[in-house]
Amino acid sequence: MGDVTKREGISVGLIGLGVVGSGVARILLEKADVIARQVGATLTLRRAADLDEAKGHSSLIPPHVFTTNARTLLEDPEIDIVVELIGGEAPAEGFIREAIARGKYVVTANKEVLAKHGPELLALADEHRVGLFYEASVGGGIPVIAPLKRNLQVNTISAIHAIINGTTNYILTKMEKDGLEFSTALKEAQDLGYAEADPTSDVEGYDAAYKLAILATLAFRVDVRAKDVYHEGISRLAYQDFRYAKELGYAIKLLAIATQEGDSVQVRVHPTFVREDLLLAKVDGVFNAIQVDGDLTGPVIFYGRGAGSLPTASAIIGDIIQAAQSIQLGLPPGPQPKLDTSRKVTPMSDLRTRYYMRMTIADSSGVLAQFAKVLADHSISISSAIQTEVDQSANTAEIVVMTHPAQEAAVQSSLEEMRSLEVIKEIGNVVRVEDWGAE
Amino acid sequence: MGDVTKREGISVGLIGLGVVGSGVARILLEKADVIARQVGATLTLRRAADLDEAKGHSSLIPPHVFTTNARTLLEDPEIDIVVELIGGEAPAEGFIREAIARGKYVVTANKEVLAKHGPELLALADEHRVGLFYEASVGGGIPVIAPLKRNLQVNTISAIHAIINGTTNYILTKMEKDGLEFSTALKEAQDLGYAEADPTSDVEGYDAAYKLAILATLAFRVDVRAKDVYHEGISRLAYQDFRYAKELGYAIKLLAIATQEGDSVQVRVHPTFVREDLLLAKVDGVFNAIQVDGDLTGPVIFYGRGAGSLPTASAIIGDIIQAAQSIQLGLPPGPQPKLDTSRKVTPMSDLRTRYYMRMTIADSSGVLAQFAKVLADHSISISSAIQTEVDQSANTAEIVVMTHPAQEAAVQSSLEEMRSLEVIKEIGNVVRVEDWGAE
Repeated sequence: MGDVTKREGISVGLIGLGVVGSGVARILLEKADVIARQVGATLTLRRAADLDEAKGHSSLIPPHVFTTNARTLLEDPEIDIVVELIGGEAPAEGFIREAIARGKYVVTANKEVLAKHGPELLALADEHRVGLFYEASVGGGIPVIAPLKRNLQVNTISAIHAIINGTTNYILTKMEKDGLEFSTALKEAQDLGYAEADPTSDVEGYDAAYKLAILATLAFRVDVRAKDVYHEGISRLAYQDFRYAKELGYAIKLLAIATQEGDSVQVRVHPTFVREDLLLAKVDGVFNAIQVDGDLTGPVIFYGRGAGSLPTASAIIGDIIQAAQSIQLGLPPGPQPKLDTSRKVTPMSDLRTRYYMRMTIADSSGVLAQFAKVLADHSISISSAIQTEVDQSANTAEIVVMTHPAQEAAVQSSLEEMRSLEVIKEIGNVVRVEDWGAE
Repeated sequence: MGDVTKREGISVGLIGLGVVGSGVARILLEKADVIARQVGATLTLRRAADLDEAKGHSSLIPPHVFTTNARTLLEDPEIDIVVELIGGEAPAEGFIREAIARGKYVVTANKEVLAKHGPELLALADEHRVGLFYEASVGGGIPVIAPLKRNLQVNTISAIHAIINGTTNYILTKMEKDGLEFSTALKEAQDLGYAEADPTSDVEGYDAAYKLAILATLAFRVDVRAKDVYHEGISRLAYQDFRYAKELGYAIKLLAIATQEGDSVQVRVHPTFVREDLLLAKVDGVFNAIQVDGDLTGPVIFYGRGAGSLPTASAIIGDIIQAAQSIQLGLPPGPQPKLDTSRKVTPMSDLRTRYYMRMTIADSSGVLAQFAKVLADHSISISSAIQTEVDQSANTAEIVVMTHPAQEAAVQSSLEEMRSLEVIKEIGNVVRVEDWGAE
């Protein structure tokens, strides 16, 4: 502040030289002219750190820039902007915290750190009058954080419905279109590099839950953390579920849903029946889409590649340019909006929605009535039912019902009761249904 | 600059109290708290001007705020931000120019002024160190100008494919889904308030052309003006065209297309066959969608309500907040990126694309060969042909062909030649086909 001397150039330090980090380093070099024009100063990659010594022998990162020790970079007073791309909670969070405390701007793609420690880190950045930018943490190359922060800021946002994990969307698309089983589709995703060797974080919804916590905090100005987000993965889905969904007019997507109504805030990630005429039902493969419902705008959807080296690097570089402009002008970004701590996340058991249920029942008279009675006893009413596929040899039948809106707690206890009924052979699957309109 | 005294409040002047203007005034009042928190200062609507005296008798605009004379507002030194919402070229352009020259920030939704005078007005704003914001000029409440400017700025953008006129998209959707003729669908749109009494600007593609000029200038950093944009309306489309399109696997949309390849920049608005598996083909009713293809991000799509009082007001208020933050911090926005004047818009005749052609021909032997020869003589090759609907009484048949990529100039001269052939009774329609992939 008050420093009117234009700087000669701005120095960047990069922690993590994986696919995204290397992409960022390459673009900083190859598009140096474009970037310099936009910032009004040259950006130099002064230091790049990676634990893997071999990363120091590439043409991209000269030996004098490379270090295996991230501290070298944090302690370098010449570095203005630290770009953290190692992912995971520790040591990334400590690096970010220290960089901020040393007065450096930070750009990160780290959804886990943001979802667990975002509000503290943003407050720390305010205190040190630097910026903490995280556009790349959600939706890869799709601009969504900045539009939420800036353009939609006067809207009261009632809901976010998002496909924010490309890996699971790829798997679900394969299951739906090619009739693959989950394990086969997962294997294919792994072979193509869309899924990790250990796919837990994607497949069980952790990744989407982190991203949803970030979006909900921003959209509702409520403190939503990773641990507040209910999440359920896609591994229980079977081919029949897609067949029935289609018959009923739905696609199945792993949706991240955040809603607010009065004091109630709900955040959840789970497989969801999405009406097939909605645009989100048509988002296939590794693509992401984030629908934001504002009171003024109505539904707005942001769509694109949610992952990958170049799309993510695009978001990172966009943030680096904004950080650099802010430094170049000698002006820290304005303070973060205060979070409303009076509103809390509502427990999942309070959810009211519709449900799809697929059961294997004994094929004898009175069983359907028994099943219906359990639902009725829990105030769950059936909107439609399909009974199909009698298995003569096992003497069982498969039944599918769609319910009217019911309470999650009631549904869970009805399922508990069904497990104890001998005539209900197997609870095939239960999937929540969203009938919100996009148009 | 250098003025560190925090201001007491920021004063807004509003020109034009139509539906959008009234919406803006209402939101400034009703959401004053939210806005003040984000700006760090109170925003006051100090003056509102409208030629219609009756607008001064609403509870929204107190008498001491209302004026029928926009000059009162321009000449008021206390007003920091002028919001221009009268639309049209004159006198709006003069008001904007004068407001800037008097050191005021300007927020506008005026696509015509931007598409005709944007570069000069932005340069004037740079010179006077104020901001000229125009998010609402394209896509209503959908954030697209700011993301293009900020988040996607490091991308080299190869193409924009956009549905940016809700009126025509509504009409086309009605023609496609309900089998209405153009005139009936237009009438329905007018009854619903989606189309003006004089629908020329929407229906003939002027509105979309203005918006495309704005987007192309921003995306390509080339000086593209309204007059550079080829545009063709939707009034020639007939019900059969939708039927054939469906049969061939396409939807028909009024697309605004901007492409750059090397030194060639193409900008055009016309009815287009869009492959039905692409998301843009699924954008129905009054909704808009803008697809931007970046070298790093790949395709990114922004979707939402492209018009209407509240969505447009949302974009306007978003811009007002940014203007106010900039004023509050005593810091003008950075200069606009320089436009590359070496690249010019390529003439439409240079376009290479595929074409759909529907003709009524004499139903006698040799006619198809004659038709095919005309195309072949112009190096246009046919990829598929459908001959249907022989009209026994008139002794004519309808033929539909899809061509391989061909030159626009060649297609136009082949049509010229066909008009002189007696066996070709009528050139039903010719529609360009886009086979670009979104995924």
